[in-house]
Amino acid sequence: MKDIQSSHDSRRINIRKVGVKSITYPIIVLDRESKTQPTLARMNMYVNLPHRFKGTHMSRFVEILNRFHGQFNLKTFHLILEEMKMRLEAEAAHLEIEFPYFFRTGQAGQASRMERYDCRLHGSLAQTFDLVVAVDVPVPLSTRHGPGETLGFSGIWGYVTAAVRMKRFLWIEDLIGLIEQGAAAPTARPETVESMCRRVSAALQTTGSFHWYKVVVKNIASGYSTFASSEWPDPVPDRSDGLEAACFIGGAPGACERFSA
Amino acid sequence: MKDIQSSHDSRRINIRKVGVKSITYPIIVLDRESKTQPTLARMNMYVNLPHRFKGTHMSRFVEILNRFHGQFNLKTFHLILEEMKMRLEAEAAHLEIEFPYFFRTGQAGQASRMERYDCRLHGSLAQTFDLVVAVDVPVPLSTRHGPGETLGFSGIWGYVTAAVRMKRFLWIEDLIGLIEQGAAAPTARPETVESMCRRVSAALQTTGSFHWYKVVVKNIASGYSTFASSEWPDPVPDRSDGLEAACFIGGAPGACERFSA
Amino acid sequence: MKDIQSSHDSRRINIRKVGVKSITYPIIVLDRESKTQPTLARMNMYVNLPHRFKGTHMSRFVEILNRFHGQFNLKTFHLILEEMKMRLEAEAAHLEIEFPYFFRTGQAGQASRMERYDCRLHGSLAQTFDLVVAVDVPVPLSTRHGPGETLGFSGIWGYVTAAVRMKRFLWIEDLIGLIEQGAAAPTARPETVESMCRRVSAALQTTGSFHWYKVVVKNIASGYSTFASSEWPDPVPDRSDGLEAACFIGGAPGACERFSA
Amino acid sequence: MKDIQSSHDSRRINIRKVGVKSITYPIIVLDRESKTQPTLARMNMYVNLPHRFKGTHMSRFVEILNRFHGQFNLKTFHLILEEMKMRLEAEAAHLEIEFPYFFRTGQAGQASRMERYDCRLHGSLAQTFDLVVAVDVPVPLSTRHGPGETLGFSGIWGYVTAAVRMKRFLWIEDLIGLIEQGAAAPTARPETVESMCRRVSAALQTTGSFHWYKVVVKNIASGYSTFASSEWPDPVPDRSDGLEAACFIGGAPGACERFSA
Repeated sequence: MKDIQSSHDSRRINIRKVGVKSITYPIIVLDRESKTQPTLARMNMYVNLPHRFKGTHMSRFVEILNRFHGQFNLKTFHLILEEMKMRLEAEAAHLEIEFPYFFRTGQAGQASRMERYDCRLHGSLAQTFDLVVAVDVPVPLSTRHGPGETLGFSGIWGYVTAAVRMKRFLWIEDLIGLIEQGAAAPTARPETVESMCRRVSAALQTTGSFHWYKVVVKNIASGYSTFASSEWPDPVPDRSDGLEAACFIGGAPGACERFSA
Repeated sequence: MKDIQSSHDSRRINIRKVGVKSITYPIIVLDRESKTQPTLARMNMYVNLPHRFKGTHMSRFVEILNRFHGQFNLKTFHLILEEMKMRLEAEAAHLEIEFPYFFRTGQAGQASRMERYDCRLHGSLAQTFDLVVAVDVPVPLSTRHGPGETLGFSGIWGYVTAAVRMKRFLWIEDLIGLIEQGAAAPTARPETVESMCRRVSAALQTTGSFHWYKVVVKNIASGYSTFASSEWPDPVPDRSDGLEAACFIGGAPGACERFSA
Repeated sequence: MKDIQSSHDSRRINIRKVGVKSITYPIIVLDRESKTQPTLARMNMYVNLPHRFKGTHMSRFVEILNRFHGQFNLKTFHLILEEMKMRLEAEAAHLEIEFPYFFRTGQAGQASRMERYDCRLHGSLAQTFDLVVAVDVPVPLSTRHGPGETLGFSGIWGYVTAAVRMKRFLWIEDLIGLIEQGAAAPTARPETVESMCRRVSAALQTTGSFHWYKVVVKNIASGYSTFASSEWPDPVPDRSDGLEAACFIGGAPGACERFSA
Repeated sequence: MKDIQSSHDSRRINIRKVGVKSITYPIIVLDRESKTQPTLARMNMYVNLPHRFKGTHMSRFVEILNRFHGQFNLKTFHLILEEMKMRLEAEAAHLEIEFPYFFRTGQAGQASRMERYDCRLHGSLAQTFDLVVAVDVPVPLSTRHGPGETLGFSGIWGYVTAAVRMKRFLWIEDLIGLIEQGAAAPTARPETVESMCRRVSAALQTTGSFHWYKVVVKNIASGYSTFASSEWPDPVPDRSDGLEAACFIGGAPGACERFSA
């Protein structure tokens, strides 16, 4: 092993992506009630560089972020990507943010409670702007909309994650509403991941609001989970496998942290 | 929100993937010294179902796993996928395993030490068999190959993750050797993620052993990381963005756990 | 702030503990069926140094670990502590190991399945030897002892953690058996954390096998958990608060990793 | 095992602690610049119940939290504990919160940057009020106060965690300042965990601002960490070991999540 020379000239290797990962930042998001909601985001910012590009300046990513003072909405999201693309002379710019989003649930006459939903926005700007919005919705085991909800008597059945590309603007609250509507069982349990996945997908399909969606339903058992996923439009078969491989690899450093930490 | 009927018939929704996630299992892997190495794996097993398939039996995944008694090598990996595909009547079968791999490093006359490398194998079997092997290699800050290595005086510069599709069989130890050879700076520090990424890629390229590789170099600073990645052959541009989007979404439940846990 | 001189001589500060944290290592444990079980442990090894001690040699911790080749049972546990205390000239030596322990569950005629239990052993050797054994037992929501258990229809109610100091040797399998016996509800659900905590404590109390135990029952809801704990003999009141404070602080770097990672 | 009757009456078992764990909540903290800082907290709230207490109402914890609208400062911290103690008729009330705290670092003429510090407050109210403040301060490897700081050329040496009981009020920024002053090496590296621990402790000691402090210095290497800790006043020897045991156990469910998740 030791005798192999790095005879392939490393200067000829193209760097495809460069950026900043896992930077946490206090941000402000707008919610449907027209109020600003402070929360905390973890962000990835990166660019695709053209071939033969000689270097980048990592500090520019953070400078751009600072200029926007953590204000995130659809408009600033687009502006940040434009500035990244321009200042870093990039072919494409990517901004991924992940944050918990809180809103008050509970009916009149009941103790309201801040419910937490983990959200992700993944925007990219190449020739066109692309935005994927994803949210994790917990599926509790007790009847949570009933009048006699009691804290501490329940448990977790699992999570529904829906990712969408929207045709028209939809509040995260509305997306969550659609998912919860689909997740609620029309019939008694036991419940399978396949049937819940079908119902949530049908609820998204019915609205006609999306160019694309993917639904993953996860049921947590002790020591492992079972899951089912559906995607619309159907992914091209050849592409599907490669997608998964890349996903698995791209997630590598994170996955490793989860395992070892 | 509440008046929307799930008018889209959920029975017409196709489930694309069904399986078991994050099951941990004691496994035995072979290492280069011809010895068996017991370790612990976290596994995902799932299948792509044909359209209109009416259901699956989750317990079959675990039964298949049990039949192989945690013995993992290239041969059993292929056999498990074949059995999954057959017994679940699937279009494609996927098996992803993630495990720490240990081997003794250190030169003659020095205290040897078990070094840990996090490995991932992602195999899939559709018409053909595809296997991606990935490994995370830590980049320490002290000169670790020097004669005066002292425990507790160093720190972490970052990680190199390499994922490969092999033309011919290579031990994980050899893959790690190639990465460490590329990661070792030929000149003095400071070091950039771009230059280390180029050197590791060149080291992989030189061997001619791979159909495909992707290298991600991550430098850990306080509170965030910077990274650079390269891939060979170059991904098709249109596909690249979609890949990332899917990756981000596919990783959603995990990402969320990392954030909130 | 900047004008404060470190006028207090740092050489007069006593180091209380020195050691190695979060080292992962493949280990072999004995199980009740008289078979060796390979698993993976995360370990902390540290010593209390006498006042005025001038330094320690971190590499000795790893050397001692290597000498035992990952063989862990009650006898080697004691021997490792003795060697740590002697070679590092320490007042007290501590060894904490955390590992998943697997064993096959399921009745005759049913598909058996490897069930995972996370275990911790904390031994210390000062004037006397002290060993605390702790195990996390998941509480599923479906009736798991019934004949018709089906994979994928359940969910998680929570976890019971029991920590004990034993009067006489007990296999981990037996300790888990006691906990599961107490956790099984004698009456129908809903279940409170308080009542399950009482039943598990009573099950441990009844055996007369323990000098000391602590039981923590955690019920997982979406976004938070509720818990109840009991301890026997009752902790001295003054001490109780301090214990928690120290625990919170001692766990600081870990807690922080969980939050930020 | 199966024949043992739970003959010990579970109704006679005393529950020592009851509460809510790991609830995340957007909060607002005050910083030294007299501005309010929104951030995200993870909280534990629990009470010690008197013997023979017949039950508690978990929902009260969340109601109390809601009444304070996430406003956290020393005054509200005390008020929340008083309300917990009163409404739950408890012997003692505990509130632990953990949150990242951001402030802008960087000198005039340089690009400023939001630096993140993970903080913990642990308050308890029995006969008297006790508050422990802890903060994790990252120790980077590059000279971070120098004029030519460049993003992406550094790495992490480790973390210093200091926990204190204050005699007089001190801003978190000032506590961090003291720690960074102590952590900065007066001489060239290599650096040991012991010597950094001594210097940080001396910096805290010199101010005379604390009733009690504990300092843990952690150096991160690839695959494990080394650490040293000091505490003042010296803990009572007998108590020290027990403290650690309890800490290890108390952290059990969390530790398990970290290992397995």
